[in-house]
Amino acid sequence: MKDYAHSSLKELAACIARREISVETVARAGIARIQELESSVHAWQYFDAGQVIAQARQLDARVHEGLLFGLPVGVKDLMDTADMPTTYGSPIYENHRPLVDAACVAAIRTAGAIVMGKTVTTEFATFRPGPTRNPRAAADHTPGGSSSGSAAAVACGMVPAAFATQTAGSIVRPAAYCGVVGYKPTFGTLSLAGIKSLSPSLDTVGVLTRSVGDAAFFIGALARLPLSDDLNSDVAPSKLRIGICRTPHWDRAGDGTRAVLAQAARLLEQAGAIISDVDLPAPCGGLTDAQIRIMGYEAAAAFAPEARTHPEGFSDAFAALLQAGKAIDGTAYVAAQALAAASRQMVSGVFDKVDILLSPSTEGEAPTGLAATGDPIFNRMWSLLGNPCVHVPLGNGPGGLPLGVTLTGPRWGDARTLSAANLLERVFASTN
Amino acid sequence: MKDYAHSSLKELAACIARREISVETVARAGIARIQELESSVHAWQYFDAGQVIAQARQLDARVHEGLLFGLPVGVKDLMDTADMPTTYGSPIYENHRPLVDAACVAAIRTAGAIVMGKTVTTEFATFRPGPTRNPRAAADHTPGGSSSGSAAAVACGMVPAAFATQTAGSIVRPAAYCGVVGYKPTFGTLSLAGIKSLSPSLDTVGVLTRSVGDAAFFIGALARLPLSDDLNSDVAPSKLRIGICRTPHWDRAGDGTRAVLAQAARLLEQAGAIISDVDLPAPCGGLTDAQIRIMGYEAAAAFAPEARTHPEGFSDAFAALLQAGKAIDGTAYVAAQALAAASRQMVSGVFDKVDILLSPSTEGEAPTGLAATGDPIFNRMWSLLGNPCVHVPLGNGPGGLPLGVTLTGPRWGDARTLSAANLLERVFASTN
Repeated sequence: MKDYAHSSLKELAACIARREISVETVARAGIARIQELESSVHAWQYFDAGQVIAQARQLDARVHEGLLFGLPVGVKDLMDTADMPTTYGSPIYENHRPLVDAACVAAIRTAGAIVMGKTVTTEFATFRPGPTRNPRAAADHTPGGSSSGSAAAVACGMVPAAFATQTAGSIVRPAAYCGVVGYKPTFGTLSLAGIKSLSPSLDTVGVLTRSVGDAAFFIGALARLPLSDDLNSDVAPSKLRIGICRTPHWDRAGDGTRAVLAQAARLLEQAGAIISDVDLPAPCGGLTDAQIRIMGYEAAAAFAPEARTHPEGFSDAFAALLQAGKAIDGTAYVAAQALAAASRQMVSGVFDKVDILLSPSTEGEAPTGLAATGDPIFNRMWSLLGNPCVHVPLGNGPGGLPLGVTLTGPRWGDARTLSAANLLERVFASTN
Repeated sequence: MKDYAHSSLKELAACIARREISVETVARAGIARIQELESSVHAWQYFDAGQVIAQARQLDARVHEGLLFGLPVGVKDLMDTADMPTTYGSPIYENHRPLVDAACVAAIRTAGAIVMGKTVTTEFATFRPGPTRNPRAAADHTPGGSSSGSAAAVACGMVPAAFATQTAGSIVRPAAYCGVVGYKPTFGTLSLAGIKSLSPSLDTVGVLTRSVGDAAFFIGALARLPLSDDLNSDVAPSKLRIGICRTPHWDRAGDGTRAVLAQAARLLEQAGAIISDVDLPAPCGGLTDAQIRIMGYEAAAAFAPEARTHPEGFSDAFAALLQAGKAIDGTAYVAAQALAAASRQMVSGVFDKVDILLSPSTEGEAPTGLAATGDPIFNRMWSLLGNPCVHVPLGNGPGGLPLGVTLTGPRWGDARTLSAANLLERVFASTN
């Protein structure tokens, strides 16, 4: 077998399908990697090697069917698992064992995947960090959040793919800080059933992987979409129109972020793409505030049950988020939703002129320390718009930690977005 | 106190706030009504008079605060309750007791309401009926579904308000068959957290009540929106532009439905409104099929967990729905979502020309028998578009059972929709 830590999901699945390698061997390679690094990375909220091997043996013993057959996957601990504890990153749910799996967990099991364990999430997918360290840094740097464990686990080769969710910036930001691919599909692509609800207008299931191809293969398999086949066929590089979208928050972009955005544009231009600058229509300037308002209002509603019965289990920061959300009246919430609806229409017009928007993923490299997970300032508006986003890592920034860019396509234009991201990944690799 | 079965929620809340009547007295009036009629109506999946009285006494003993203080509410058994069993209408969850309440349940408790019990839902809010009878009919007629118990309970005065949810037609249809007001707010208005997910792009929480004013008061209180205050102020009747929208399914409307739609238009015209005919833009003709496709695809994803572990617990009809959903590929699903997005934009343009659309709620009166819950043919497209809908009952049809119409406003134009519905209700009452 090829090196477990460097095979693509498709290759690995093909090797398993041809029985060149057993599922147990794949599982054991992952287990070994986890056992080697977990004491320094702390990516896992729950990991039981015996349980993983048992799953692998069951798979080896049965008919090989399912597009993800034998592939090890990390599951964010915001997602219900009937056979593993599910804490949602909160002491309130310390001993929680759901009755049934989340829909996306059942989907990967039906597709033949191994659930390697539960990856660390921040508290209810918001801001209080877990113990996870950024495996790309020698000193303590945040892996980002809320999909902290998933990003770290993929970044250090513990699993080739891990589920993530994004409400503000919880897929793209940890992907950027840990130097992996983060793919947030169009809002609504994968089911949220059995995932602890934070803000239903925003919550989106996605994946963290080592390559764009893996992300396309994984989500394509679950959503029954031909994303992987379309990777190299959707738009010819010479016809690809890329709009550089600095967003209304460009003043927050550090030098490294500015440089990597310019580098991405240059690489795509060299590959034949047509580059232009794009200013979003003026109302889009309000999207970040609208996202904050909607998330607060909806979180206050979603956590009203725990606020009644277990308020002592909230961190101060989470309690403050809910308090702020409760103070938002319905009229302000409705205005934010109306702005979002109008902006979606306008942004859909932008995509008549360009195929893909290129924008910053983060202000810069992963901040120092583990007390906070960085700011989702460059991600919030895309979460609210619901467009597909792919973070493509492009090496390290001036501080020696990963940096990259976000490619955004039109709603339901996931194939096009992944195709452009794949092109950028390829031209970057060929120049390094 | 006024008659429990005829006071408005606002009046009842005011009486309780002035301590003219105790919460326990209100609760006991509701209990008496339930005990009188339940053996023939079967509206309740779970009802425990002792538990209701205990809640009422706790409320009487504490500071009177909360907009719904002391008001008895029925909770659809699709919604989690930590202190009552929650079956989702399925034998799979026969003994299920959730850890925490659904968000909307916690919200009414925080607002001071009494949870009177759990009302019967069809299986997972789809099509296999529960035992509920339509209380408006002497012989066995369906109350509609999926919010069967909620509609029946409100119709026969067991509770003044009951939660309902709609994915296809589960608020408007039972409201129509039982002759009560059904209000489906703009998609996303109330949190879905803790409600069994069927199709997250469509699932919408709403309410069934005896009057438009009660519906506005109830949802306004929970969403912190001034819906009740705005009832008589949003649009002056003489400026109200009503578009009669026969929908692409007009051939399915029976004589009674045709007559009641004409009657509603006439009543509004007499009140001063300007009536015109509206044909929706052509692509909207595909919305009903798109709704069916999206619901099937998403239901298959949402119930993948139960399909793996408890498939024997599904009815044949539900299993068939999931099977059909699994057969829908992602590309067809995406096309349906794209049609919905484009249609939302076009329908938003329609609302530049008219304030409110008036359309059929059902093919006709409640069908005979309890083996099926009627067809949501006239509701599916509005569920997919996400616009606010209010069903206003307008007396009985030729068969002697209730009929009424649906008023639909622009997305987030709930105040306007309720205001027009309130006008129609008022002019109808004044002519009868």
